[in-house]
Amino acid sequence: MTDRRSPDDLLPGVLAGRTRCIAKLMSRAEAGFDGDQEVLAEIHRHAGNAHVIGVTGAPGSGKSTLVGALTRAFRAANRTVGIVAVDPSSSFSGGAILADRLRMSGLTGDAGVFIRPMATRGAMGGLASASLDTVDILDAAGFDLVLIETVGVGQGEVDIVQAAHTVVVVTPPGLGDGIQVMKAGIFEIADIHAVSKCDRAEAAKTVAELKAALPLGLTGKDRFGWLVPVLATSAERDEGIDGLRAAIDGHRAHLGDSGEMDRRRRRNLQMRIVKIAEEILRKRISDRRGDKLSELLDKVIAGDLDRRAAALALLADSNEK
Amino acid sequence: MTDRRSPDDLLPGVLAGRTRCIAKLMSRAEAGFDGDQEVLAEIHRHAGNAHVIGVTGAPGSGKSTLVGALTRAFRAANRTVGIVAVDPSSSFSGGAILADRLRMSGLTGDAGVFIRPMATRGAMGGLASASLDTVDILDAAGFDLVLIETVGVGQGEVDIVQAAHTVVVVTPPGLGDGIQVMKAGIFEIADIHAVSKCDRAEAAKTVAELKAALPLGLTGKDRFGWLVPVLATSAERDEGIDGLRAAIDGHRAHLGDSGEMDRRRRRNLQMRIVKIAEEILRKRISDRRGDKLSELLDKVIAGDLDRRAAALALLADSNEK
Repeated sequence: MTDRRSPDDLLPGVLAGRTRCIAKLMSRAEAGFDGDQEVLAEIHRHAGNAHVIGVTGAPGSGKSTLVGALTRAFRAANRTVGIVAVDPSSSFSGGAILADRLRMSGLTGDAGVFIRPMATRGAMGGLASASLDTVDILDAAGFDLVLIETVGVGQGEVDIVQAAHTVVVVTPPGLGDGIQVMKAGIFEIADIHAVSKCDRAEAAKTVAELKAALPLGLTGKDRFGWLVPVLATSAERDEGIDGLRAAIDGHRAHLGDSGEMDRRRRRNLQMRIVKIAEEILRKRISDRRGDKLSELLDKVIAGDLDRRAAALALLADSNEK
Repeated sequence: MTDRRSPDDLLPGVLAGRTRCIAKLMSRAEAGFDGDQEVLAEIHRHAGNAHVIGVTGAPGSGKSTLVGALTRAFRAANRTVGIVAVDPSSSFSGGAILADRLRMSGLTGDAGVFIRPMATRGAMGGLASASLDTVDILDAAGFDLVLIETVGVGQGEVDIVQAAHTVVVVTPPGLGDGIQVMKAGIFEIADIHAVSKCDRAEAAKTVAELKAALPLGLTGKDRFGWLVPVLATSAERDEGIDGLRAAIDGHRAHLGDSGEMDRRRRRNLQMRIVKIAEEILRKRISDRRGDKLSELLDKVIAGDLDRRAAALALLADSNEK
């Protein structure tokens, strides 16, 4: 027997929004929730009220600073904010950067803000699920908004941000190579474009370029009647931040009115269930590493079995368990 | 009936190293090889002779230029080189950049070089498998070396480069933020560190910093007796390129002598089989989207089923198929 509280005991504290219980349950979620599936199911039952906002952009785009400023703007409107910061480098520097940012934003010690860094390192495929469980914990704990901040490179990261209701893509002034990366997968997922660092001279040009790159009228993603805005912001001068907040709220209202919210919720839930199935499969496979997989590997190496047949055998075997 | 040759017909041409057959089979691999599993199995049977080298580094690290210079060095030693360039931005700019690089490297029209760009865009989780099938096609086609060039950000990309026998991590002079990202997952996977752009003044400092960051003596990954070298290179001045080539060859020899090659091959094969199993699962699930998944989603939304139970039902159902 240990004196660590079981997840069941943590649940009432989480639902009451108690910081320490939330943090402890998040650690369990990150560790994969072994044996605590009932608690996770309970969290999911209580989630679904928060507005989940994905904020993404290339490294150096200024998205962290913008998230800080945006959080302050939401707090000024008396709304609580949970932040999940997914950052490949955060295992090294994240803690310090986050602490700095909170201090700079004047948010230290505000119980209406909860910030959680998620490190890519070591998560090996489980990062998306762990990050989204963390979002659900903040949602169930009663935060009005949950911001997912993620660097917009890599398929896994794009999957995460697509789980949001509203996606804000952050672009710094002076596109150069940036637009190449942006266009390769992130540009299209934006509900709102925010140009950061608009105290710089090149910002107006960047706003114009992004506007020019958007399709005219309502096409594709915009078929439910939302015209993607391009907003100039400067966290440093506190310019455009409240406009961005208003656009986010406007998008939320539009999602509800148009019925698009239900469609997105359903799509996100589907993605989550598929990811959970994949993780169960991975876990079953790794539990079997000692015997079945090794045996199959021997056969493939000897040329008695092709890889696909081995994969099929692994699937069949893992399902019997 | 169409006049497109079936993959079966392409196989002899691929094994004979004929460029057009190789390119056509790669397109089939990228499309997922539906129904052509036998051809893929045949490719795997003929693969296993090439030395597969992963070259990774942050965007702007100069890895593309280094790959060009390295290819020229291997060609000068009369060895054939296949290149798989995995690049998130390549769907937009890749073709042009690759063509430029070939021209700059004086490799245009050399039948001993085959270069294949792989775009992240649209591959949705299948990129690792498609890229590694492409590596196997080049291997089966008889290329002596296959270079996988990939930007070192994102778990998917790290998975790809870890499938190589030898991993070269490229770092530009002046570490700054770079080292943070590097350390979050790539630094440790290097068999060889190459500092690029060593015509710049800061290069010597970067070499020293990387050396200082390496563990002393043989630890962790190096337990099979390989000391990770840090090499200064300048593709522009053609300095250090032949040293890098020699280090790569030395690593290959060391892998064979130490028995580490067998261990890595087995680990890579295991990773591939698990990925194939995951893709089969994803495909089964997506084939069922119309009926089973929709039904499960309704139940979860109604609160009659939790997500994990839905995922388990999906796994059980997909396995019966």
